[in-house]
Amino acid sequence: MRTNRLKELWRQNQTATNAWLTIPSSWTAEVLAHAGFDALTIDAQHGLASDLSAILPMLQAIGTTDTVPLVRVPWNDPATHMRMIDGGAQGIICPMINSREEAEQFVGACRYPPVGYRSYGPLRAELHLGSDYFQHANEEVLTLAMIESADGYKNIEDIAQTPSLDGFYVGPWDLSLALGIKKMGDFEDPQLLNALDKVLNVAARRSLMAGVHCGSPEIAAAMKEKGFHFVTSAIDTNLLKKAAADVVQRYQDLVKK
Amino acid sequence: MRTNRLKELWRQNQTATNAWLTIPSSWTAEVLAHAGFDALTIDAQHGLASDLSAILPMLQAIGTTDTVPLVRVPWNDPATHMRMIDGGAQGIICPMINSREEAEQFVGACRYPPVGYRSYGPLRAELHLGSDYFQHANEEVLTLAMIESADGYKNIEDIAQTPSLDGFYVGPWDLSLALGIKKMGDFEDPQLLNALDKVLNVAARRSLMAGVHCGSPEIAAAMKEKGFHFVTSAIDTNLLKKAAADVVQRYQDLVKK
Amino acid sequence: MRTNRLKELWRQNQTATNAWLTIPSSWTAEVLAHAGFDALTIDAQHGLASDLSAILPMLQAIGTTDTVPLVRVPWNDPATHMRMIDGGAQGIICPMINSREEAEQFVGACRYPPVGYRSYGPLRAELHLGSDYFQHANEEVLTLAMIESADGYKNIEDIAQTPSLDGFYVGPWDLSLALGIKKMGDFEDPQLLNALDKVLNVAARRSLMAGVHCGSPEIAAAMKEKGFHFVTSAIDTNLLKKAAADVVQRYQDLVKK
Amino acid sequence: MRTNRLKELWRQNQTATNAWLTIPSSWTAEVLAHAGFDALTIDAQHGLASDLSAILPMLQAIGTTDTVPLVRVPWNDPATHMRMIDGGAQGIICPMINSREEAEQFVGACRYPPVGYRSYGPLRAELHLGSDYFQHANEEVLTLAMIESADGYKNIEDIAQTPSLDGFYVGPWDLSLALGIKKMGDFEDPQLLNALDKVLNVAARRSLMAGVHCGSPEIAAAMKEKGFHFVTSAIDTNLLKKAAADVVQRYQDLVKK
Amino acid sequence: MRTNRLKELWRQNQTATNAWLTIPSSWTAEVLAHAGFDALTIDAQHGLASDLSAILPMLQAIGTTDTVPLVRVPWNDPATHMRMIDGGAQGIICPMINSREEAEQFVGACRYPPVGYRSYGPLRAELHLGSDYFQHANEEVLTLAMIESADGYKNIEDIAQTPSLDGFYVGPWDLSLALGIKKMGDFEDPQLLNALDKVLNVAARRSLMAGVHCGSPEIAAAMKEKGFHFVTSAIDTNLLKKAAADVVQRYQDLVKK
Amino acid sequence: MRTNRLKELWRQNQTATNAWLTIPSSWTAEVLAHAGFDALTIDAQHGLASDLSAILPMLQAIGTTDTVPLVRVPWNDPATHMRMIDGGAQGIICPMINSREEAEQFVGACRYPPVGYRSYGPLRAELHLGSDYFQHANEEVLTLAMIESADGYKNIEDIAQTPSLDGFYVGPWDLSLALGIKKMGDFEDPQLLNALDKVLNVAARRSLMAGVHCGSPEIAAAMKEKGFHFVTSAIDTNLLKKAAADVVQRYQDLVKK
Repeated sequence: MRTNRLKELWRQNQTATNAWLTIPSSWTAEVLAHAGFDALTIDAQHGLASDLSAILPMLQAIGTTDTVPLVRVPWNDPATHMRMIDGGAQGIICPMINSREEAEQFVGACRYPPVGYRSYGPLRAELHLGSDYFQHANEEVLTLAMIESADGYKNIEDIAQTPSLDGFYVGPWDLSLALGIKKMGDFEDPQLLNALDKVLNVAARRSLMAGVHCGSPEIAAAMKEKGFHFVTSAIDTNLLKKAAADVVQRYQDLVKK
Repeated sequence: MRTNRLKELWRQNQTATNAWLTIPSSWTAEVLAHAGFDALTIDAQHGLASDLSAILPMLQAIGTTDTVPLVRVPWNDPATHMRMIDGGAQGIICPMINSREEAEQFVGACRYPPVGYRSYGPLRAELHLGSDYFQHANEEVLTLAMIESADGYKNIEDIAQTPSLDGFYVGPWDLSLALGIKKMGDFEDPQLLNALDKVLNVAARRSLMAGVHCGSPEIAAAMKEKGFHFVTSAIDTNLLKKAAADVVQRYQDLVKK
Repeated sequence: MRTNRLKELWRQNQTATNAWLTIPSSWTAEVLAHAGFDALTIDAQHGLASDLSAILPMLQAIGTTDTVPLVRVPWNDPATHMRMIDGGAQGIICPMINSREEAEQFVGACRYPPVGYRSYGPLRAELHLGSDYFQHANEEVLTLAMIESADGYKNIEDIAQTPSLDGFYVGPWDLSLALGIKKMGDFEDPQLLNALDKVLNVAARRSLMAGVHCGSPEIAAAMKEKGFHFVTSAIDTNLLKKAAADVVQRYQDLVKK
Repeated sequence: MRTNRLKELWRQNQTATNAWLTIPSSWTAEVLAHAGFDALTIDAQHGLASDLSAILPMLQAIGTTDTVPLVRVPWNDPATHMRMIDGGAQGIICPMINSREEAEQFVGACRYPPVGYRSYGPLRAELHLGSDYFQHANEEVLTLAMIESADGYKNIEDIAQTPSLDGFYVGPWDLSLALGIKKMGDFEDPQLLNALDKVLNVAARRSLMAGVHCGSPEIAAAMKEKGFHFVTSAIDTNLLKKAAADVVQRYQDLVKK
Repeated sequence: MRTNRLKELWRQNQTATNAWLTIPSSWTAEVLAHAGFDALTIDAQHGLASDLSAILPMLQAIGTTDTVPLVRVPWNDPATHMRMIDGGAQGIICPMINSREEAEQFVGACRYPPVGYRSYGPLRAELHLGSDYFQHANEEVLTLAMIESADGYKNIEDIAQTPSLDGFYVGPWDLSLALGIKKMGDFEDPQLLNALDKVLNVAARRSLMAGVHCGSPEIAAAMKEKGFHFVTSAIDTNLLKKAAADVVQRYQDLVKK
Repeated sequence: MRTNRLKELWRQNQTATNAWLTIPSSWTAEVLAHAGFDALTIDAQHGLASDLSAILPMLQAIGTTDTVPLVRVPWNDPATHMRMIDGGAQGIICPMINSREEAEQFVGACRYPPVGYRSYGPLRAELHLGSDYFQHANEEVLTLAMIESADGYKNIEDIAQTPSLDGFYVGPWDLSLALGIKKMGDFEDPQLLNALDKVLNVAARRSLMAGVHCGSPEIAAAMKEKGFHFVTSAIDTNLLKKAAADVVQRYQDLVKK
């Protein structure tokens, strides 16, 4: 089967860059799949494509390239985890993991017995990723637990011991909120940086991948420098919004002169 | 009814800025409707939303703001013109107008008798734009004929005399091709600039609006300076493509150092 | 195959009632298919479902009942006629027929050679209506030419002689416009009534079915009385719009007291 | 940001009227948004639009007017609550709340920390309702717990004490079933009226808004009189169904004579 | 109301054949509804139509024939069970039932009080299946609990005593995995056959229907022989995949010669 | 850019096999793209995906493999030809070409000036097939004119001289109808075989590719033998229909015994 390039990069101690897809369109997914990111994550929680009807064509569009497709699911719901990886997603980012029990429920849904309790039926995964999918799926499907709540942060050592969990993904906006940090997602806030260090630390000790939601290439590069192996440097809607604002501004500036 | 702000701007001798929508998504349409453009044109010819099923939700999304929605139809087909303005588009940009006869077929489809032959049934137009839509539609629906073929360019004086036509819209890429200009859409090419002058000239003499497809705010500002009253300064897919490429480049540059 | 109940009613000299579907939803189509109309016409011209992607599920929904589905196509375009009847529509109402030549183009697209030039491939028609569809399709597909333009009205005698044409469908709103009648769709206007008489007259002489767009059961009943055999007594959007206005009004009246 | 007009009306001790959307169509949503109701509730439980793919265009269509859009979610699922308000719904009606614990889970999902545990990412809410959405969302998002099960009714005093809950919404059909009342939704049944009184009573004591599903303007007006501040006077499918039945009946009556 | 033919067959001690729908298309659903199966099950777990937006048109397409539509839901989620039967599914197959408590949660969601806790609002069910739907729904909606996990298999006697449960549906692939059988879905494996016997045995003693996922007519016939009353003999994607492979193979064989 | 493998095979004097897609689903398109055909043709004429909204995700799904996607357009409409190749189709099969004039209109729409009059804007073609698309598109886009009407057959010599036309595609069902052959698509009928010979003959003399619609691998192999270079050996709906019928038959045969 097609191996999971994110896992390979991780094994080679390299950092992968990711973009976040919130636009429910197979066309923008295909455009971004050609842009040079290592992975694209379809955000089914806060993004506007949340069910398989909308996500399947996006997975197919990404599948025309070598970019690795992940899904950030809406919630820790086993049926959704299974549906997305059956549909060909090569990994799941699960929001709001608060405890090891929740982490086990998450990871279990992504692993076939006896490791977990994933139900059998990898319809598109088998077609697209390879007919030997079943043999390798437990190794190849990436599972990242989001650390973004007060409980999740507090219980991170415990969560880290979840068998077969691949790593963490920090949501700095929600984590800021949860820790009572005044400015959300401020990567210069000492309290947030301290929290990121703790995540990196735990991840390193347990040989887990550590990822983080950044929102700009500058922060992403800084986070890579800090030790993260999976950094999200762009969000599609924001790219479009900012690019459009720039055009309007540049036009107005030129015309005013 | 809601008056056509593009016509108002034109009457006030002001230039309107426009963005081009090729992504088939009501979400990106809504995002761009908030960006500050005067108008948005859904491109049903080369864009990926070409039928009303895809275009209706885009028109609704734009309708949550004051931005004026236009449709660039796929071809000079009366049924399509009517469907788009029935659906609430406030104007039509019709590609590849080659002759006055074609222009009359186009404009006639957008005007109720006795001016034209538009069929009655402005379902959404009436709901969204106002219950007195029928009384004002012939005045308010903008009709722009694209000048982009060798024949169209040759026959522009004749086309300009089409009764009830509102203006021209130049497609410099196709026009370059048609005129045998080597580099498409090169706004420094003397032959193209000459052609643009001719269009402006004819438009001025016949009191028609002149619009032009630009693709960047810099060119748009230059074209405004030149005398165009409707300038397209951005294309959604290109904005996204370029913004994504920038992120990847900036990240790689930062990481390399 | 399933015979066309509209043709049967017509042969039995009975009048059929029809409702007009402008809402692009298979659910409202199914609701109306249970309401007791003899036929439902999906309006692909002024309605909001105009392509097969939207119309197919509506045809399937109507197909759960015995109600006869027709499509009012957007324009006299052979490919569209064929696509809709391939999809299982049991008849086509074609707008803006201006001449016998146009009528022949329309009817020919609905008849297999040697009668017409319909292309072979009745995918869903054969599945849904019966495996002997091909043998009977030329007889069973209803073709109604809309008389609604000045030219169409003028040329009605000629149009009536189109071989294999089943009948007329009058669009009184467009016809009013075309004839310069001040108030559109006024069924008490003598000029309009006169025009309707002429249509009935020609139809009777040529043994053609005559249908008319009414918009209320009262007018529909009057038109039946007058001699029409196919009367459209309701338009879905208007039903909903009026019913909602009634609720708001009744509530406000009750609350004010 | 755009303030929640339902909350304003409530603060001014006025009653709001609401219609219920079960048709999965952005077009019928837009039609009803123009009808004069104060609010429209998209029914994602028993209605036919249940996921964001279908609901987003409906929210956009309602967003072309000042009508307030709510969503009645399918179940007390945090991810769904968040998705709908991220998508721009200005309130959530949550079915089958049986206990204070369930109410807290519901309301918590609609409030950012430290009040609740809503995850950050108000993509469309911020665009459509205003860039200061985050500052005001906890105040502005309306949360109504449905009282419709035996347990919910029994525990209403307890549920009423849920911090940050805005009010109740009674589902008289399910409540009738739950209380063993023979005829469902009979607003003359003393047992049901008694239950409604109790809800009003508890709501008044805790300064909560009380809403009720009515289904006709007559009952809605009576319920307003009784003290409810949010009354649902119409259901789209039923409006259409009844209007169509009326047309068929009126036509048949006229024709029979 | 339309009675549930699967229940009738079961009462007459006859075996029903079923096909599995994984293709998210109302067209292929209609094609298979004409093929001669007694029932069609839309697989919303491993199949590619998982939400009502995709499933509604499939239910409508099947509703053009007498074939009985079921839904295999993604998970034991009450809201989903209710949504699918409100949408007109005549039965639910619920995956991964591990205990009587889970079975009760499942069945309760499909029964109106006082038997269960199904919420009232059978919008399409009432329209399509009959206006007396509410009176008979508790009897007519088929509920099959999947036995496919180690726990479910262990607790089958207990599950069998769930009031109002109609039967079991064995998922031999998942059950093989759960029982540690090396080759999945091998109907000659003694351990699997033994497990099937146990299911049949328990079902017979409690007068429950026993169904099984087979995947070929040969196995289905063998399972009927064994005593199962509901056998799935085909999966749409597999039919298509195999038929296409056959064509390619036959062509290559012929051409090589 | 990605070269057109069909053209390569043709240059190497090899025959390509094709399957016909009538199911409007990106999933079945992806399944068939893995089956081993050289090309897949989306049938937008008689198939159920006819507009770009439905066809784009199918093109993307096929684009996950090396299979070449073509579109059989509904009609000789320039806007449609352009839209499909802009969307990434690598060739167009145009139905009902009756004359050289029609053939020129068809081919011209697929060629940029000065060869033809294709409008510039290859949005997805450029992204998917390569950034140098424009330089090579005139060479790489395959254009096949269908010979299936009496006029087309009569004028084939003339049609063959259309500059830049790549070849013919015979529709034997329509051609049988047109030639008055009693049994449609009978590949043993001498009159049909004679017509096929004529097509092959003309094609050979003008160095054009000759393709033919077959419907089974046996006929396809025979047609290859005869000299055709592009043979359609399967139609998706028929594959599914027949495979399902086989299952039902085999089951019934086994059970009867």
